[in-house]
Parts: sequence; structure tokens; C-alpha cells
Amino acid sequence: MPFLDEKYLMRSEAALAIYKSISDKPVLDLHSHIDIKTLAQNKKFDNVWDLFAGDSTYVWEVLRKRNVDEHFITGDASPKEKWLAMAEVFPEIAGNPVYEWLHFELKYYLGIDIVLDTYTAEDIWEQANEQLNKESMKPISLLESMNVQLICTIDDPIANLDFHEKVNSKTDKLVVCPTWRPDKAINISSPDWLNYMNKIEERYQVRLTSVIDLVYAMQLSHNYFEDNGCITSDYNLEFPVTGIASEDQADIIFNRAITGEKPTPDEVKTFISYMIGEFAEMDSETGWVSQLHMGAHPKDRDEPIENILSSSSTQHLYYSLKEFLDKFAGRLKVALYCMDANQQGTLAELARKYGADICLGSAWWFNETPIGLRRQLEFIGSIDLLSNFGGMTSDSNKILSIGSRFDMFRRVLSDTLANMVDLGQMPFSVAVELAERMAYSGPYQFWCTSSDKDDS
Amino acid sequence: MPFLDEKYLMRSEAALAIYKSISDKPVLDLHSHIDIKTLAQNKKFDNVWDLFAGDSTYVWEVLRKRNVDEHFITGDASPKEKWLAMAEVFPEIAGNPVYEWLHFELKYYLGIDIVLDTYTAEDIWEQANEQLNKESMKPISLLESMNVQLICTIDDPIANLDFHEKVNSKTDKLVVCPTWRPDKAINISSPDWLNYMNKIEERYQVRLTSVIDLVYAMQLSHNYFEDNGCITSDYNLEFPVTGIASEDQADIIFNRAITGEKPTPDEVKTFISYMIGEFAEMDSETGWVSQLHMGAHPKDRDEPIENILSSSSTQHLYYSLKEFLDKFAGRLKVALYCMDANQQGTLAELARKYGADICLGSAWWFNETPIGLRRQLEFIGSIDLLSNFGGMTSDSNKILSIGSRFDMFRRVLSDTLANMVDLGQMPFSVAVELAERMAYSGPYQFWCTSSDKDDS
Amino acid sequence: MPFLDEKYLMRSEAALAIYKSISDKPVLDLHSHIDIKTLAQNKKFDNVWDLFAGDSTYVWEVLRKRNVDEHFITGDASPKEKWLAMAEVFPEIAGNPVYEWLHFELKYYLGIDIVLDTYTAEDIWEQANEQLNKESMKPISLLESMNVQLICTIDDPIANLDFHEKVNSKTDKLVVCPTWRPDKAINISSPDWLNYMNKIEERYQVRLTSVIDLVYAMQLSHNYFEDNGCITSDYNLEFPVTGIASEDQADIIFNRAITGEKPTPDEVKTFISYMIGEFAEMDSETGWVSQLHMGAHPKDRDEPIENILSSSSTQHLYYSLKEFLDKFAGRLKVALYCMDANQQGTLAELARKYGADICLGSAWWFNETPIGLRRQLEFIGSIDLLSNFGGMTSDSNKILSIGSRFDMFRRVLSDTLANMVDLGQMPFSVAVELAERMAYSGPYQFWCTSSDKDDS
Repeated sequence: MPFLDEKYLMRSEAALAIYKSISDKPVLDLHSHIDIKTLAQNKKFDNVWDLFAGDSTYVWEVLRKRNVDEHFITGDASPKEKWLAMAEVFPEIAGNPVYEWLHFELKYYLGIDIVLDTYTAEDIWEQANEQLNKESMKPISLLESMNVQLICTIDDPIANLDFHEKVNSKTDKLVVCPTWRPDKAINISSPDWLNYMNKIEERYQVRLTSVIDLVYAMQLSHNYFEDNGCITSDYNLEFPVTGIASEDQADIIFNRAITGEKPTPDEVKTFISYMIGEFAEMDSETGWVSQLHMGAHPKDRDEPIENILSSSSTQHLYYSLKEFLDKFAGRLKVALYCMDANQQGTLAELARKYGADICLGSAWWFNETPIGLRRQLEFIGSIDLLSNFGGMTSDSNKILSIGSRFDMFRRVLSDTLANMVDLGQMPFSVAVELAERMAYSGPYQFWCTSSDKDDS
Repeated sequence: MPFLDEKYLMRSEAALAIYKSISDKPVLDLHSHIDIKTLAQNKKFDNVWDLFAGDSTYVWEVLRKRNVDEHFITGDASPKEKWLAMAEVFPEIAGNPVYEWLHFELKYYLGIDIVLDTYTAEDIWEQANEQLNKESMKPISLLESMNVQLICTIDDPIANLDFHEKVNSKTDKLVVCPTWRPDKAINISSPDWLNYMNKIEERYQVRLTSVIDLVYAMQLSHNYFEDNGCITSDYNLEFPVTGIASEDQADIIFNRAITGEKPTPDEVKTFISYMIGEFAEMDSETGWVSQLHMGAHPKDRDEPIENILSSSSTQHLYYSLKEFLDKFAGRLKVALYCMDANQQGTLAELARKYGADICLGSAWWFNETPIGLRRQLEFIGSIDLLSNFGGMTSDSNKILSIGSRFDMFRRVLSDTLANMVDLGQMPFSVAVELAERMAYSGPYQFWCTSSDKDDS
Repeated sequence: MPFLDEKYLMRSEAALAIYKSISDKPVLDLHSHIDIKTLAQNKKFDNVWDLFAGDSTYVWEVLRKRNVDEHFITGDASPKEKWLAMAEVFPEIAGNPVYEWLHFELKYYLGIDIVLDTYTAEDIWEQANEQLNKESMKPISLLESMNVQLICTIDDPIANLDFHEKVNSKTDKLVVCPTWRPDKAINISSPDWLNYMNKIEERYQVRLTSVIDLVYAMQLSHNYFEDNGCITSDYNLEFPVTGIASEDQADIIFNRAITGEKPTPDEVKTFISYMIGEFAEMDSETGWVSQLHMGAHPKDRDEPIENILSSSSTQHLYYSLKEFLDKFAGRLKVALYCMDANQQGTLAELARKYGADICLGSAWWFNETPIGLRRQLEFIGSIDLLSNFGGMTSDSNKILSIGSRFDMFRRVLSDTLANMVDLGQMPFSVAVELAERMAYSGPYQFWCTSSDKDDS
């Protein structure tokens, strides 16, 4: 049975050969939702439900699609009851990457090569839980065994970064870096924003009487992150921004909002554009990579969004980003991500235009599947350059996901390049070099060296 | 020659094996434009032009692309002259599914395995017309021989449903159900709307003095359809709706329109959103599946549509549907279709979010081709779940189309799943179960049982 | 090694067989940026940098992505230094079509079958430059040897067309035609527009006191082009136009702009829509093909574009073009191109609706890659008809590009059709005929015969 065998996701011998040449390269997970506290505590997993599904919204969603009662997902059922309920519907999940990830992790990290269903659930429960007793199954050991060299966690600007230091002191193989993600500071229309402003005042001992004070406090936070090994920031953009807006306008909007007044959609856009512009200046100064994530749909909104939405066409994405990239050309490294697969062509067109400092990130969220990864690589290769690929990211909060997702990416990458070799589009030796560059050395150079230009 | 052979549309032995396991499953055509009167009359076809092309806009369009004179398409030429004119250009149609459907139907339903061109046209004309004399070539017999178990026709709320009863009394194998499609009642900007209001008054003996009266009359119609075996409604949406609008607003708009006043685009949107909300309440009550068809381009419009169109971005589709799905979450079954292949990812993202009651329908219209069907299945499988697929539909007014289109779907489905098996993404046995679920039992459960939850 | 071997880009024996049947068909390059003066001078190339990269923005962009210093791209470095700098990073370009085009041209037009990198750069430099000394390496001879039968250059309405006559007098095998591209006359918001109006006055001895004068001058230019063998016009549309706007409105806008007043975005749209309508009337009169190129992003804009951009959704593209096509139905041949691959389905849907006079052009710009060409052909075949394909174009200013790009297209075409044959979708003989029609006779009939209808 070819299920998850050596040639999993690969169509040819050339693909397998390329894969073998990169499968042992270290993993750089440049965008991870791993909880740093979990790593710092480094406790064994209680059971295989907790390991695979306990905190995985991906798994929860597919169980709900199969009518599993919430009691057995996030409710009061015991972990074993949840595991059995999941197993009952698991064959119905096939075709979705969740099916492949779990089986891949079972097989390659727990050594259990059994297909999960209602008949095998008990057996796997026993075998897997026994595995979890081993020291080698603690989070940090798991990451080391998956050859993870770098994890960039996602952190709030007011976070204390002591946990990162603690984790780094425990391991020589793995480095954990924070990522500066200031969403809460700029979501001026959120009901939580005022409260968050108070937290910033407290954390950085700054009285926020103007937008300049806010920028100053954020600079203190940026400095703190820089001092603690941060190499990248992350901006989740609900709409395209130019990074260009006047300080005076931003200040007026800030001053109204700080009194509890609700900003208009246009004011929200102006304020966020201004702040992103200021943050990009800070990133430019420290040589961080600015990650721009676009096209995710915020889960809940209690306000009209017509005005914001009207600006979200592909054309608008193009011209807004172009203004941003023009402003920072030559002094800022940017990684672009878009959840809407239809807009990745537009991002590739922009990335191509702006030279080595601007790269396309990996396929993201719903696109991080065999078919989505392949499409993204085909786009990148034909519009931008594969060599300039920004690198795979797990975007996950599950420890094992880093292994299974990077492996999936490397297989699809190998298969995509091998297909080009088989079609006569490049020599095999060139494909092998390209695979290595995309899997490791390219992202390493882009993210982990202070200036891209110096190393070229 | 592999043309339409056993492995038609399939790339591997695994595909053929999966196909063989589902090819004899009954056909449930959940969205069909078959004319119920034609079935009730159940007359033999006069000739092979009438059978294949007489009422097929698909065929007409491709003949026009090849410069066939309208005289030989919808004009006064004899059926034989039309057949010969079609045959002359038919080789030039290759690559379009019309080419495959006709040859497939010739081969598998008429037993004529000849490629149509100007040289074979006479011969096929003779052979085929002879076939059409048989009793087994009458519409109902043809449907029975194609193993069709259910056809949902499309019906106007003022329709008389006696023909459905008549057809059902003639056959034990096939059930014909109406579908409640109230487009004409809500297209308040149409020049025909006032006239249609008169027809509703007459049909349901209700004086329409307010929007409440209209909702009441539509409820009577809904009841009548429910009593006559209806299991689904169908809404053709020109723009995304939320299903949320106040009765007062809707009533004001109604009262103006009923006097002949032209509504503004915003009023059209408000009115339709209100009515769809009311219809969804009715569907929820009876447990029908609400079909939402989006992205078709209305053939003719004699009014400016700028305001309506400005709201048709992907983002707007997402948030409007989200409001609708939030409102009816847990109490309404919905099938989502979009003609724009680019927006199917957005629909899949939504379907995934809302559990088992919301499903993605099959690829639609121009996407109902080998390449379009495959893309749709790949999207569904990787974003939503293949198991939750809403089922194939013919969307056709041609009897034989039901057979050829479902067969095309089942081949592409088998090939798509087999490709995943061959790539090690799922075991073969799991793929076989999944194929059966998608081809028959999944749609049966979703559409034909009163509550999805009870059966899980 | 399969790199660029006989089966380059092809997956099956059937593909190779189809390719062999069309590979010697003459090339009709219906949209080329070849500089007519270069052809008229017909001088030998100085060196292989000038031949391959000297004026190629495609090459420049990929070198910049690999951090090559501008000194070695467009700067003062010698051609040999530039060649060596390019060679150093060239393996990193793999996956982008630029990599394949250059190697293909080296192999098939210069007979040098060596992979370019830093170690082979000197050797290729020597061998290639030696080749360039031959008479057969002069531009016109190169084009003849690539079997180019027709080149439509892109020309300004005020251009002098004497060079075309000169080139045509030098060769019996190749015909060079001008293309009428009046972008500068309609870009009323451009800072150069006023100056261009002066040039038109001078060139055609017309005093421009109203929009009618401008239309009259453009008609004189159109006549001049018609007299000089022009068969097509080309309109680069930044936003969709209907071709419908009143002369009075256009005249008011013209009269303000001619005094230096800045038009509003809405005025720009009205003016351009009016002018395109007038130009389409002229094209209809002479039987030219009107090329509509959409979705390219203008390089620089110094004005707010919000209003223009807000109208660029897929829905708007559809309805605007529909108005245009309705207006000119039955009396104008149109070729549609869109750079945004997501919108090609919409164009195909329209092309299908309007019969033989409206065709889809080839994939364009960033889509002119193996993967982009294949997608475009799959779309065309399943929505519109492959038989009605508008024909490949090089869209390039490089002589050798015509050869390598048409060859790439013909290989992808052969592979796409062969894949349909292998999947049982059409007989092999039908695919061979279709390939010939798409590669040569279809475009010849559409572009080079005065009336499409007469020849059917």
C-alpha cells in the first residue's frame, strides 16, 4: 500500500532523489504559533488526544463537519472518549490534510503505522500513550529530533520574553526567537483597544497623550524585542495598507479614540496605515523582516465593514502594496503572504518588481495542502523566482505539526522541481541546488543574516 | 483508440477500480432543468437532432462560435439539415465538453460508436433515428435505464404540480420532485414583476397590499410544494445577500414598487435580502435544503447596475454569506454554488466553518467540465471535506445529459481520489468508501432525510 | 539528460507526434514589440549579451532579484562583464521561463548545447560571439530561419511607416505590418498628453479645437495605417470600457484638458470610453482586429487612482465588456487578453457568448510560461472553443524570443491536446487537426482575411 510510503506525494524517481538530498536539512520555522510557555515547562504530553488534537482548531473544525458533538471536541468528555469519537469519523476526513498530518505523525514520530478508525482506536490509544512516557517525547526533545533549528514564536509587544531565554538555555540545537506582532495596538476600532492602551502605559511606563507617545512606547517594545533576539515582525492586515499617512491625521484619530470615541472606517484605515509605516521604519532600522499577512477573515466583527471591504479588490491590493514597497525600497526586507490563492499571482508580480529584499512567503492556512503548496510553487517559479522563496512556515501551535508540515512541503517542493526536470525545464543538478536553497539556505540568508546584500 | 474507452478521463488502474465500484449507484439529480411536461407526455423523440441539440443552448453556442448560420440552429431548416450542419463543424468543437457529451451519449445510450463529422453524419442520422423508435427510448425509460432515482425539477411558486404526480405514477424506479424557485417574486426591479404579482394574487387568492401579504402568499406556495414532495428551494443570487433586513423597510419598498415606482439598486438589495431571509425561515421549518446559486450573469439588463456590482468582491461575498449563515446556524441546510471558479475557495472556507449543515455544491455551468470538476474536488478536499460534498447535479434540460454528466463526474471523482491513493495520501479502501459517499449516500442523507443530525 | 531534449515540455508520445505535425508551420506573431528600425538596419549583433539580454526587461528583473548590481545590468560595465555577472547567478533563475528561453535559444539557434553558469560563461561567450559573425545571424535572416511569416509591430499613430516598407522590400518570406496603438492619444490624465496633442496637430495638419477634430486626426492616422498594410489595432486598457459615451461629454472634457485642466477620474473614464468607441468604429470599417489588453499595471502614476480602481472587479469587467461587445456585435473582430489569470474565465465566458468574431488571445506577460499557457488552453477549451483561439503572440522585443516563445507554446499546446487524447476526450486525428488550426490556419483566417464570415 502506498499510503504514506517513501514516495508519499511524489510522482517520480527524480522527486525521491531530490527529496533525499534535502530531507535532513535543519528546519527553520519562521512563523509558528507554538506556545513558548509549553516549551519552557517542557512537560510530557498526558495522552495522544492532547498531543494531536487537544488544542488544534484544524482538527476541531473537521470533526464538527462530521457532526461530532461538541461534548467530544471541546466539552467535558474525557480525552479517551474524545479520541474514540474522533476515530469513528476519521476515515471520513480523508482528502483533507488533517488526515495526512495525523497519520504521518503517528507513523514517523510515534512509530505507529496503523490507519486510524473505530476498530484501531483503542490499540493506537494504548501504543501511543506508552510512547508518550518516554523522555524523548517531551516537547523540546521532539523538536530536536525533528531537526528544528529555529522557531519564531508570535508575541505581543507587551509580552515578557523570559520564557524564550529559559528555553534557549535548555537546548543547544534549537533557538527560539520572539516575533513582534502589534495587532492589538493598531486595531483602534476594537472594543479591547482602550484597555490595551492601558496595558502599554503600564508595561512601558509611558503616558499615552498623543500618537507620538504610542509610537514611542512601541519603539521601546521594539528595542526590547531586538535585545531579546527578535528578527521579524508580523502584521495581519485586514485590508491593504500603503504605510503612508500624516502624523497629524493619525494624532487626531488617536486623540478621539483614546476618549472612547468610535473611529470611522476611513479613520481606521488612516490610523493603521500610519502605524504600519512607523513600524516598518523600526523594522528597517533593526534589519528585521516585516511579514505582511493578508486576506484572513477576522472571526468576529460587530461593526459595519462596507467601507473597509470596498477597497479589497486585487487592483487595490496591488497599488496599495506598491506604495508601501516604493516608500521602503532598498531599506526593508518584506515577506508577503495572502490567504486568497487568487491574489498570490499579484503578490508574485510585486515581489518580482522589487528585487531581492521582497520575497513571497509560503502558501498559507487553507493553502498549506499538497495542492495548495504545489500551486504556490508553480506561481512563484514562473512569475517571481523560486530562489527568492521566503521559506516554509508551520503557522501552527502543535509541536508535531512543525515536522509533518515541513516534510509535506519538502516533498511537494521535490516533486514540483522533479516535474520540471522530467519535462526538460532544468538539469537535475540545478534542481538539487535549488531545492536546498529553498528548503534551507535561502530562508536562512534572508531572515537570519543582518543584511541580504552583504552576503550576495 | 482510447477515445471514450473504459478508462475515459482516468489516469490509473486505481481510478478504474474506484469507478467500477460506484458506476452502478443510483443517480440523484438534485438540480435539473428537465421539463416535467415532457416527462408527463413521455413521447418518443422525433429524431436525433431533437434528442441531442433541439433545446440545448450549450450546443447552440458552440455552433455559433463555428459560424454556423442561425438558420441551421434555431431557424427554419429541417432537423436533418441542422444535423448535417452541426456534423460539418463538430470536429472543431473538440476540447469542449459538448464534444464529449454527445459522443458519450451516442456510444453508451444509442450504441453508436462512430465519430461525428461530415462524412459520418448521414449514417449516424439513420442509425440513431432507428433507435429512437424503440419503446426503451422514451424519456422515462431512458431515465430508468440510466439508473436515475431522483430528479428535482425547477419550478415556479405559482406552478401546478399535477405533472409531477402523473410522472411518479408511471414509474416505480424514479421519483420526480419539484424545486421551489421564487426568483420572479423577488426581482422587484424587473419589468415583469408587477404582472407576476397579479399572478400570485390569482393563484393563491391573496390581495397583496403589503410585503406581509406577499410573504403570506409565498408561504401558501411553500406549503403547497411541501405537500407535493418538495425537498429543496433554489435562489439565484445576482449579488450576495445577508438575509437580514427590516420588515418595515421591505414594506416601504414593496408599497412603492407595487404602484409601479422603480426601486433604487439599494432598495433592490434590501428587498431581496429581506425576502430571502423569510424564505430561509420557511425552508428551515420544513427541513428543505436552501440552494444558493451565485455568480451567474443575467442575460439582459436594461438598468444601471453599478451600485449592485460594486458589492461583489470576494470579501463582500464572504461577509454577506457569513451574516446569513450566522443567522440560520443550526437550523437550516444550505448548499452553496458559485459559477466563478475563483470564489469557490471562499465558499469552501465558509462551508468548513459551519459544520455539517452547510455543504458545497458541485462545480457549476462552465465549471462542469473534466478540468473544472477536478479543480472543484481538489478545493473541496483540501479546504472543506470531500465527505461533506453536496452531490453532483446535471443542471441540464436534456434527458441524456443526466447520464453523461453524472458519468463524467464519477470518472473525474474516481480519478481524483485514485490520484490521492497513488500519491500515498489515503488508503485505497478509504478512497472506495469516500467515492461511494460522494456519489450517492452522502447526498442522499443530506437532501433526502429530514434531519441530518439524526442520521449521523 | 532530458534538459531541453526532443520531448521538452511534453509528457507522452502522442504529444511528440502532435508537435512534430505542427513544428514547421509558419509563425504569425500578431503582437510583437520588435523595433522596426532594428529590422530595417539589419545589422549583426555585437555580442551575445546584446542578443540575449541587452534590451530585455525580463532578464533585467530576474538579475535584480538575485542581487546583481545595476552596474552589470543597465550600467557602464562592458557587455562581457555583464554576461559574466549574469552567468554567475543564472542557475538561480531556474524555474522561471527566462532560464528556459535563453538555453533554448542557445541550443537551437546558436547550436550551443551547454548549461550556462559561472564555469561555462567564457566558453559560451566565445562560441556564441563567433556565431554572431555569420550573415545568417542578422535579424532578418534569423527571423526567416525561424520560419516567421508575419510580424505585427506596435506603432504610434504619429509614426512614419517607411521602415516597414523597407523591411518588406528586403525579404520574400517575411511580412512586417504595423499595429495602430493610440494609447498616448487617450491617456488624457498623463502629463505628456498636451505635448502629444501638439505632435498630432503637426503630423496630420489638423488644428485640435474639439474632440471631433481629434477623432478626425486619428481617422487620418487610421487611414494611413490601413494604406500601409495594418490589420490590427491595440488598446491597453487600465480599466474596463464600454465604448459608449456621448460626444458632448467627451468634448467638454477634451476642451478643459486642452487648456491644461486636470480631468477627474470619472472624466478620464468617460473620455477613454468615448475614444475607444470611435476607434472601434474605424476598426469595424477596415475589418481590423481590435485587440483589448487588460489588467497590466501601469508602471508609474502620480495621481490618486481610487475612483478608477473601484471599478475593476470581475463583475465590472464582465458587464463593461458586454456593453462594448453588444454595441459592435456582428461588425467587429475582437481579441481579448487579460494579464490577471483569474479573469481569463470571465473573458472566455464572454468570448463564448459572442460567436466567431470574438476570440481569446493567448496567455499574456507573466502567464506566458509553461504553466500559464497550459492553464489558459485548458480554460479556453472547456469554456470557449479551442478552435476559436486567437493565436500565440510573442509580445517581445527580442528577435530570438519569437522563436523560443512560439516553440514553447506549440509544445504546451501539443501536450495539452495529447493529454486529452490520452484521457479519451478526443480522437488523435481530431487533435492533430485542432493543433494545426490553433498553431496556424485559425489565426491566419481570423487576422489576415478581410471577413471571417466569408471564409467559413
